[in-house]
Parts: sequence; C-alpha cells; structure tokens
Amino acid sequence: MLVVMQAHATEEQVRSVCERIESLGLRAHPIPGSNRTAIGITGNSGAIDIGSLEAMPGVIECIPVSKPYKLVSRDAKEENTVVKVSTPAGEVSIGGASLAIIAGPCAIENREQARTVATHVKAAGVPLFRGGAYKPRTSPYSFQGLGEPALKIMADIRDEFGLGIVTEAIDNESLDLVEEYADVIQIGARNMQNFSLLKRAGRASKPILLKRGMSATLDEFLMAAEYILSEGNYRVILCERGVRTFTDHTRNTLDLSVIPAVQIRSHLPILVDPSHGTGRRNKVLPLSRAAVAVGADGLLVEVHHDPDRALSDGAQSIIPDELQLLMAEVRAIATVVHRTLN
Amino acid sequence: MLVVMQAHATEEQVRSVCERIESLGLRAHPIPGSNRTAIGITGNSGAIDIGSLEAMPGVIECIPVSKPYKLVSRDAKEENTVVKVSTPAGEVSIGGASLAIIAGPCAIENREQARTVATHVKAAGVPLFRGGAYKPRTSPYSFQGLGEPALKIMADIRDEFGLGIVTEAIDNESLDLVEEYADVIQIGARNMQNFSLLKRAGRASKPILLKRGMSATLDEFLMAAEYILSEGNYRVILCERGVRTFTDHTRNTLDLSVIPAVQIRSHLPILVDPSHGTGRRNKVLPLSRAAVAVGADGLLVEVHHDPDRALSDGAQSIIPDELQLLMAEVRAIATVVHRTLN
Amino acid sequence: MLVVMQAHATEEQVRSVCERIESLGLRAHPIPGSNRTAIGITGNSGAIDIGSLEAMPGVIECIPVSKPYKLVSRDAKEENTVVKVSTPAGEVSIGGASLAIIAGPCAIENREQARTVATHVKAAGVPLFRGGAYKPRTSPYSFQGLGEPALKIMADIRDEFGLGIVTEAIDNESLDLVEEYADVIQIGARNMQNFSLLKRAGRASKPILLKRGMSATLDEFLMAAEYILSEGNYRVILCERGVRTFTDHTRNTLDLSVIPAVQIRSHLPILVDPSHGTGRRNKVLPLSRAAVAVGADGLLVEVHHDPDRALSDGAQSIIPDELQLLMAEVRAIATVVHRTLN
Amino acid sequence: MLVVMQAHATEEQVRSVCERIESLGLRAHPIPGSNRTAIGITGNSGAIDIGSLEAMPGVIECIPVSKPYKLVSRDAKEENTVVKVSTPAGEVSIGGASLAIIAGPCAIENREQARTVATHVKAAGVPLFRGGAYKPRTSPYSFQGLGEPALKIMADIRDEFGLGIVTEAIDNESLDLVEEYADVIQIGARNMQNFSLLKRAGRASKPILLKRGMSATLDEFLMAAEYILSEGNYRVILCERGVRTFTDHTRNTLDLSVIPAVQIRSHLPILVDPSHGTGRRNKVLPLSRAAVAVGADGLLVEVHHDPDRALSDGAQSIIPDELQLLMAEVRAIATVVHRTLN
Repeated sequence: MLVVMQAHATEEQVRSVCERIESLGLRAHPIPGSNRTAIGITGNSGAIDIGSLEAMPGVIECIPVSKPYKLVSRDAKEENTVVKVSTPAGEVSIGGASLAIIAGPCAIENREQARTVATHVKAAGVPLFRGGAYKPRTSPYSFQGLGEPALKIMADIRDEFGLGIVTEAIDNESLDLVEEYADVIQIGARNMQNFSLLKRAGRASKPILLKRGMSATLDEFLMAAEYILSEGNYRVILCERGVRTFTDHTRNTLDLSVIPAVQIRSHLPILVDPSHGTGRRNKVLPLSRAAVAVGADGLLVEVHHDPDRALSDGAQSIIPDELQLLMAEVRAIATVVHRTLN
Repeated sequence: MLVVMQAHATEEQVRSVCERIESLGLRAHPIPGSNRTAIGITGNSGAIDIGSLEAMPGVIECIPVSKPYKLVSRDAKEENTVVKVSTPAGEVSIGGASLAIIAGPCAIENREQARTVATHVKAAGVPLFRGGAYKPRTSPYSFQGLGEPALKIMADIRDEFGLGIVTEAIDNESLDLVEEYADVIQIGARNMQNFSLLKRAGRASKPILLKRGMSATLDEFLMAAEYILSEGNYRVILCERGVRTFTDHTRNTLDLSVIPAVQIRSHLPILVDPSHGTGRRNKVLPLSRAAVAVGADGLLVEVHHDPDRALSDGAQSIIPDELQLLMAEVRAIATVVHRTLN
Repeated sequence: MLVVMQAHATEEQVRSVCERIESLGLRAHPIPGSNRTAIGITGNSGAIDIGSLEAMPGVIECIPVSKPYKLVSRDAKEENTVVKVSTPAGEVSIGGASLAIIAGPCAIENREQARTVATHVKAAGVPLFRGGAYKPRTSPYSFQGLGEPALKIMADIRDEFGLGIVTEAIDNESLDLVEEYADVIQIGARNMQNFSLLKRAGRASKPILLKRGMSATLDEFLMAAEYILSEGNYRVILCERGVRTFTDHTRNTLDLSVIPAVQIRSHLPILVDPSHGTGRRNKVLPLSRAAVAVGADGLLVEVHHDPDRALSDGAQSIIPDELQLLMAEVRAIATVVHRTLN
Repeated sequence: MLVVMQAHATEEQVRSVCERIESLGLRAHPIPGSNRTAIGITGNSGAIDIGSLEAMPGVIECIPVSKPYKLVSRDAKEENTVVKVSTPAGEVSIGGASLAIIAGPCAIENREQARTVATHVKAAGVPLFRGGAYKPRTSPYSFQGLGEPALKIMADIRDEFGLGIVTEAIDNESLDLVEEYADVIQIGARNMQNFSLLKRAGRASKPILLKRGMSATLDEFLMAAEYILSEGNYRVILCERGVRTFTDHTRNTLDLSVIPAVQIRSHLPILVDPSHGTGRRNKVLPLSRAAVAVGADGLLVEVHHDPDRALSDGAQSIIPDELQLLMAEVRAIATVVHRTLN
C-alpha cells in the first residue's frame, strides 16, 4: 500500500499520516520525491482498511500495490535513487550521471598484495576499492579469507590512498565488523535470499551492494532489496553478476537485459560485475563495454597484478594494464549514453 | 586426502596417524567402515606433504582425493550411512532398509492447527512431524513464521503424540533454539550455500536435513554437506526438492535422477520433497511414488487439513486422506525396491 | 473453437455442422467421445463468427478455446486416446491399461547386430522394436545411420520376430520411406518444432511418436502435437526424454512431473525414454521404475548386446540382462498404479 | 584432421594432397589463408591413417583436431571470414571493419506494408532488408507467412530500393525458392539442428545466416555451422538471438558473452538479433548498443511502422524513428570498437 500525498502537503500532514499508520501497528516509510511525497506502508501481511487514511488532509490517494515489491518500486519513488558513498577523497555518487567503478582483488591476501593492487586502482582513476575479507567458497577446504585482519588492511588502504572500501559480509557477525570498517557493505549472490542477513543489512548505517542470486528472477531480486528497504536502509545498490543456465562457455550467463528491466520497475541504481558474470579474463573488457552501453550505472571489476598466483578467482581477474584500457573504452562509450566517468 | 588403514590396523595405530595429522596443523577424521578405517584429512588449502604418513604402521596408502568432496564420499566410507533420529517412540532410522517419511504443515500457524495435522500424521503411521517455525519467504510482507512459540507447540506435540520433530533454522540464532527443541534440524534450499550456517550446523548435536539449492549442481550439493561433516557432525540427511529450470508447468523441476547419482558418489541418505518439488497438490502422489521407485530413502511431505486457508504453501499441501493413500501406494512400491515402510 | 454436440445428436446433425464449418473456409474435426461428440474448428487465424453454428440442430454450445491447443486437449476429447499399433503378432495398444514397452538399439548397425538385439527384445516379452536408420547427430562427421538398408533390415526383423517397428524420420524424404516400412514413425526431439515435418507427419498413415524438444515448455510440446492432429492424424504418442538444464550429472534432466501435467491437459498417451533422459546406463533402471510409478503409459529403452562397441549412444544402452530385470521390476510397479504388462 | 601446408607450398602441392585425401574415400577442403593454406579432411567417422600425408611435399604437419568442429575453427583458418553479399547497390560485407545492419518486418504481410517498411529501412541507411515469407510458428493456427508471393514482393523491393534481401527457409522445398529470390538464406533457431536442412544449405549458392538454437551450447552452434561448411558452402554468418533460461523478464536471455567466445574459436562472423533476443520493444535499443559494444559484426532488427497491428511479433518490433536513433547510437559506439557503419 502506498499513500500518495499532494504536491503541497505540509511536513506536518505527512507526519500525521505516518502516526496514524503506526497507530495501526504498521510501519510508515515517507519517501520524499521531487514532486510529491509518497508513504509506503509495510508490516501488513494482508489487506488493510485504508478508508480512514484517504480522508486525511494532504492525501491524494491510497494505491493498493499489486506488484509484490513496494518501496523499491518506481510507484513509490519516480526519480532515480542516487546512493552517496563517503570516501576520504569526498562523496562518490552511484546512480547519477557519472558512472561508478569499483575495482580490486577478489580476496585480500596480505598487506603487500592489497597495496600493490590499490596503487593500480588509484592510478586508473577508480574511486572505490573492493577486496574480500570473508569469502563464501563452495569448498570448506578453499581459502576462506583473512577475516578482520583483511578489514584492517583495507582500512589502512582507505587512509593511504583515499579510496572508498567495498567488502562482503557473510553473516550477522561479519556484518557488524564490515559495517565498522567499510564504506559499502556487499551481500553476495549466495546470500541474496539469506533473509536474516538482509534484515540486518536493512538496519546498517552504510549503503548495501546487493548481488543478484544465481537463479533469481527479477521479482525475487527486487524483493530481496525490498527486505533491506523495509527495515529502513534505503541506500541499496543492485548488481547483476550472471545467472546459471545450461551454457558452458562462460561460468555464468551475464543477463544484460535485466538492466533496462530493473530501470523500468525500480528507482535503485544497478551495477554490473563482468568478472563473476563471465568467469573469464578475456571476456571482462567486451562485457564491460556492453554493460555501460546497455545503461548500467557502473561496474564492479576484479583486478590482480599477478592473477595466476591469486588465492581465489585468478581466472577472471584482469591485470592493471587491462584496467587502464577498460577505463578508456568505458569513458568513450559513456558519452554515447549521456553518462560521464570522472 | 584420505589415509587408508589396513583391515587389521589397531586402534592405537589409527590414533597415532591422527595425532601426526593434527601435529601438522590439520584435522583428522577417522571414519570406521566395516572392512577398513579411513582417515580423512581436512584443513589443508592445497597440497600437503604426505610422505611421512605413508610410512607409519597400519597405513596402506594415502589417496589424494581429486573429487572436491572428501568426507561425504564413498571413498571415505563404503557402506551407507544410517542416521538415527531419537523420538519419544524410539529411534527412527534414515538410510536403512526402512523408508523414512516426514510429514506435517508448511508452517505452524497455531496450536490447534498443529495438533489437528499431527493427529492425522500419527494416524497415517508417520513417525516424524515437520512444521515451520521460521519461514524464509520471498517477500518481507509474507507470514514469516511464529518463531519460538511454534517450537514450543512442536515440543508439546512431540510429547503428546510421540512424534519426532523436524524444523528449519534460518540463521545462527534460530539454530540455537531449533537445536534445543527439535530432533532434526533442517537447512533450507535458500541457505544451502550459507556457509556460516552450515559450519554452525556442523557443530550441532542433532542430525541435519540439508535441502538442495535451487540451482545447485550435484558437486555443490555434496560440498555443502561436506561443510557440515568437516566440522564434525556426520549425521547429515540430503533432500532433493526440485531445481529451477525453464519449465512452467511445475514450480520447480524435481530431479529424480540425482538420487542414483548421489548414491554412487556418497554414503549419505537422501530424501525427496515432492511438495516443494512440484508446488502442485495433484502431483504430490505421483511424484512420491516415483521417488520411492527411483530409490530414495524416504519422503518429506507437506500436509494440511485445510490447505485453502493455510498461511503458506497451501497450493502444494495434500490433505490427510491423500496422505493415507500416499502411504499405501508407497508401501506397495517399497517392496519392489527391497525396502519396507513401518 | 470447439462445437459441443448434444449426447443424442444424430450423425446427420454432426455432418451438417461440419459442412457449414467447411463452407466458411475452415476445417472441421469431428471427435467422437463416449458421451458426446465435439467438433474442433481449425484454419481460423483469429476470431470467427459463430452465431450461426450455435443455432444449428444438435449443438449445445460453441466454446472459444482460450488454451493455445485444441484438438490435443481434454476439452476436445475427455477420455484417454488409445493408439493401436499393428504388428505381425497382433495389435499393440499404447495408452490403455497395459503398459507399452519399446526397446532396441540406438542405431541399426548391420543385420547381425539388429537380429541379436531383436532376439533379446523378443525374449524379454517386448512387442515393439526400435532402431535408428536416420540418426540426427550433432557432428556431421558422426555415424548418420544406414538409411534405407536399415529400414529393410527392420522389415525383415518384423517378419522374422513378429515385432512392431518404431523408427525415426528426419525429413520429408525419409518420412516417405519410414512410413512404408515402419509401424510407428518417430519424430525426434531436435525436430519437435520442424513444423514442415510435423505437417507431413499429420498426413501419414501410421501413428507418430513425438519426442519433447530439449527446451520445450509443456504448451510448446502439446502445440507440436496439435500440428499433427490438425492435419488429420490423431494417432499421436507423446514421449518425455529429458530437458536441458544447468545440471551436469546426467546428460539431460528427466522431467517426470510432465507426465501428470500432460494427463490433466491432454487425452494423448505419453511414454518416457529413460535412456536419452539420463544418458547413463546405470540410471536407466531406476528411472524406468520411476516413470511407471509416476503414471507413464510405457517406456522407450535403448538396448545393445555390446554397448561398448555401439556406433552411437553406447553409454546409455542397457544390456539384455538388464532389460529382463527392468521388465520384472516394471511389472511389479505396474500393479500398484493399476496397470498391466503383458 | 587438418593438413597444414608450408607458407610457400605451390598450388600443385596443395592439389596433390587433396587428390590423395580423396583417393582415401574422404573429402578435402582447401582453405586458403593469408599466411598458409590448411586442408580440412572430412568424411572420416573415426581415426584415419595419416602417415602418408605428412610425408608429402609442402606439408608441415597433420593436426588431429580434438575439438569437434574443424572447418569453422580458427585452426583451419586464422583470419576472419568476411562474407560478401551481392545487392543491386553493390557488395555488402559481413565480418569486416564495417558493421552490417539487417532490418525489416518480422513477416511480409502485403505489398504495401513491405514497401512502407522498406522505405524507412532505406532511409535509415540500412543496406539489407529482412522479411519473413515462411514463418515457423508455435501454433498451427497462427499466421504462417505468405510463402512465394512474399518472396516476389521482396524481389520487387530489391529492385525498387536496391536493398539486399534476407529471408528464412524452413524446409528443402522453401529453400529451393528462397535460394532463387534472396541474397541471404536464413536458417531459424528452431531448425538449427535440422541436419537435413543444414546439408541442403551447404549446397546452396547463397550465404547462410544461421541462428543459434534456443538451448544450443556453443559447441552445438558451431557444429551446426560445420554441417553447412562440410557440404561446401563456406559463406556462413552466425547469429545470437537469445537462449532459454529460467528468467521471465524477457522472452529469451540474450547471451552476449557468446560473441567473444565465438570469435576466439571461429573465423565466422556473428550478428546479434536484439528483437528475438529480448522480445520487448523497449529493450531493443539498449541491447543493440551492447551488442555492438561487445564486438558483434552487426545486427538483425525487426522494424514495423505499425507494430500494434503486425501479424506477428509486434511486441518486439521497433518503429522507424527508433531505427534512426538506433543507427545513430550504434554509429557512435562503433568507433570505440574500431568499427564503422556506412
């Protein structure tokens, strides 16, 4: 259910409607837009009696939302959400005119490796550094990440290079730590329907980068984001990273048509991860170009200076020279789609 | 890596090998078989120097395990694992000659509903009662389960009806509670690669029912089980519940060929969930018959006395009369595959 | 569009309605049922004016058929279609109380091989012999079948062993020949949407065995059958042979839930091919049992006396001893589902 | 098997090797490259004794080709194949530096509709006109195309507008006619493994546009092309048009990563069909940009001046204004990938 307020509704009118909603045992989510404010109602498992709301001052109408998602929908908020990420070098916007690039190694292996990659990332003009401290691995015998020591290394990189930090949390415990150290908290594909973790992310003080699950439909993807917004954290960045199909020439099948599909339904920004999306180094550049051309808000790319010796996912990491080339090509394509790249 | 001991190796020889392994910073898993003992080694991220082990008394050979899983493999243990579940009415075996049937409502809605269904489950001769206290739901606005009150209702059903209790945990917090109340802890399909939860399940004192993820390959499924065994809990029951494909005539595509495929590779028992596997009431009976005919060790079935008013998954719940029929048909097919049904 | 006639409508009334339909440039398909006759109308690309039909004597009602298929639908014909196949040893029914088993080698390699397998097929009590004369192969360099010489070998086997012959046509030319020699004409999975071939099959004088395409939805499968019926050949036998999914433990994923789904929507019989459905010899028996348990009308099984030297698909052929075992197990399960096996 | 000749091998030496191959009952395919000539050998179902070939003058080596395809492979021909299409306005190259655009209506409905769309296609600077005369439709009751009258309309459009004509053949009969009228013969996705039709296409005198099957792996796609080349027609243009997956937000999932994957393995040009690839008008432009950005050799696009009244596939046809915009955007992206667009 959405309550749509008049364009000239006062703040007090909005507050009154919210109070009425909460008095019914429900939760009110005022969503200010440039033209009008809408108020999402959550907490109702079924239909609610809304007669009394429509009669309140400043209310235009109450829309029963038939789509399964509410807060992530363009019905709730017409204009694009721009998520602001704080970095030592200033705010980075994700979802605006400027493309957002996030780059770094799959996993933080040690301080020297991290600093080497960070030097290249910085040199390429990338403002956000990614690196894994907690790695969800198919095998219990694979390298699982360094944990908090990796977070500390990234915190130092933040200070030294002025890069914003993006890293994954895999459970409530690691999310507590990641929230403390990172600028953006990543939820991985395997946890896209870990609803307990999504709720915790919804109470976090940092933006959430939510990756699409390996076999998630578009509705399921948006509903996962809805979990986060419904707990109060509206700073959600979506990320397409390939889905599982019968094909065997790439590790996953990058579904670029989901980008315009998301943009029609939702106001949230969406990035593309061409590294996991293809699993092959030689396809990262072509698919990065394609992702920007299709209209994505940015890229999440794995970079390693010595991928053959990387402790994880070396096969899909590009080298620093390729990152430079990627930035040049993406910058050229950005202008065609009326975007920029700092 | 597996260390294979001689048939007549003494307990002391086995213990010595284990101590040597642990002195290398690794973890030893002695797996007694009827003919020989094998010792699984875990904790190594890559190759390990095994020269010294092969020279020890009682050791036949050290096998580098090329398959990604070790402890769940038939290489580690030749004979079938039979998981024993304690119930007030005695031990129930899963994986032996007798088929194991687990039945109950999708979710515990209230005490009366639970007791009504339990009466029918008991009357049908089913020894294990399933019911959801914590429900992973696609939408944050759907019924999420009653939580601990549902666990208490199930504990009372356990006492009143003598039924063993099977229920799902969705995070570490709920697992603590479920471990206390239930006889079998279920890990759902959406959490099959929630590795943090799998590790916690590996330290639980109760058997784990692990459902296959929606797009999990057989290797990924067995590796998820490996996570649990590698932490020390060897009482794992697998469960096929349908995978996601392009088809639209059922909610998921039940992959019955995975049953013989698992049985070749692993010693763990495997059940079939025809309710989630099809999502349609009118297909539960035919697919239950097929599951037993293909060689599954049992079934996990949703039953509700009033499915049209069920708070979740009513479309796939069968009614008590259908459960009676299911038991009769399954009993007849069991004899063809040399199984019994109490 | 379906015209439903009264239970006591005379033959003349039915004929009059058919004539009126044909005078409109459309095609009438009278479908006699045990209770009533329905007349399917085909040939209309869009809506047709049916006012005049409903006013005719003997007509109950005209039903605009919203489902995309008409003639294959249970709306058109309530009771199951039983397809009669003529063999030298008498009629074989497919779709009735008795299960139909078809067995033989993937390809006819030479007279001796064919006779050897036929001896075993006959000995196992199987009434229908399958063998490929024209093989659709992924590679142009693989064995493509012997062509007409193989048809001649099968014709001799028909005479010598009294077995009905089932073999595949891959284009209009081969269909002309197959129609001459065989008792059932098979259309393979790769040709399920070769609409030109389907139309030709619809004008054939022999029953058609139509295999489901590798990624065909249920609607597409039934629409392919509709092509055949719409040309006048109502003797169509459907066959599930596995669909393509992400899984890698079997060559295809056998979708047994399609059996009850077809039986709800259509009156046509449906078989299961566990050989192509799994691609692995050791899964043919378990999945054959499951296919019969789920309610299929029979099986199509590949048998070879020396599968390791078969020119095609040896990996999925069972040996004669396994066929004997299969028949015994299937016979036992048949009684549970109220079927018989001669 | 490939015989690689020395760079300076004489024509006579090449001819001698070919004669020797043919004397063994096999077929020789000399493939002249800019550096060297390779000779593909086909017709062998298994291994062949090649000792005698390697000893012949001018031969460097004989390579047993482990990949299932030979003639389509980069091993057989290193440099890109550029397929020349004759049009009244001159030769159009597909696979070279210039992008090839093919546009037109899904089906030719009548002369006026065809001429109207052709006017817009011409005005947009597109050199090749597509239109369906024979339509493979899921339902026998859907519009199946006008047949030869549509071919005649297209022949007139060829003369009037100077456009090359691309249209689909669905069986041997229609291929005979299409070969007569069209400049490029299309084989549709549903016929990608209609091997009888592929062989006939291999004997055609016109280039073949081969679309990827709905669930074809990359190997199967290339093997289908191999069928055509192995019969002697080397002018094959591949086309990605989306594959079938679990997703529901587009009709098919456009697999753009197959473009670089094909380009690594094969010398054949590859186009993208964003109309069938998405099935939605509003996604055609974004995915067209992405297709060019990823490196495709061109596009196959459906255009209609009145898509809401199109007899087929109106939902995915763009309007003439959108075609103009598409050309402008694609032209801008082409320069980034070092391509041009006339």
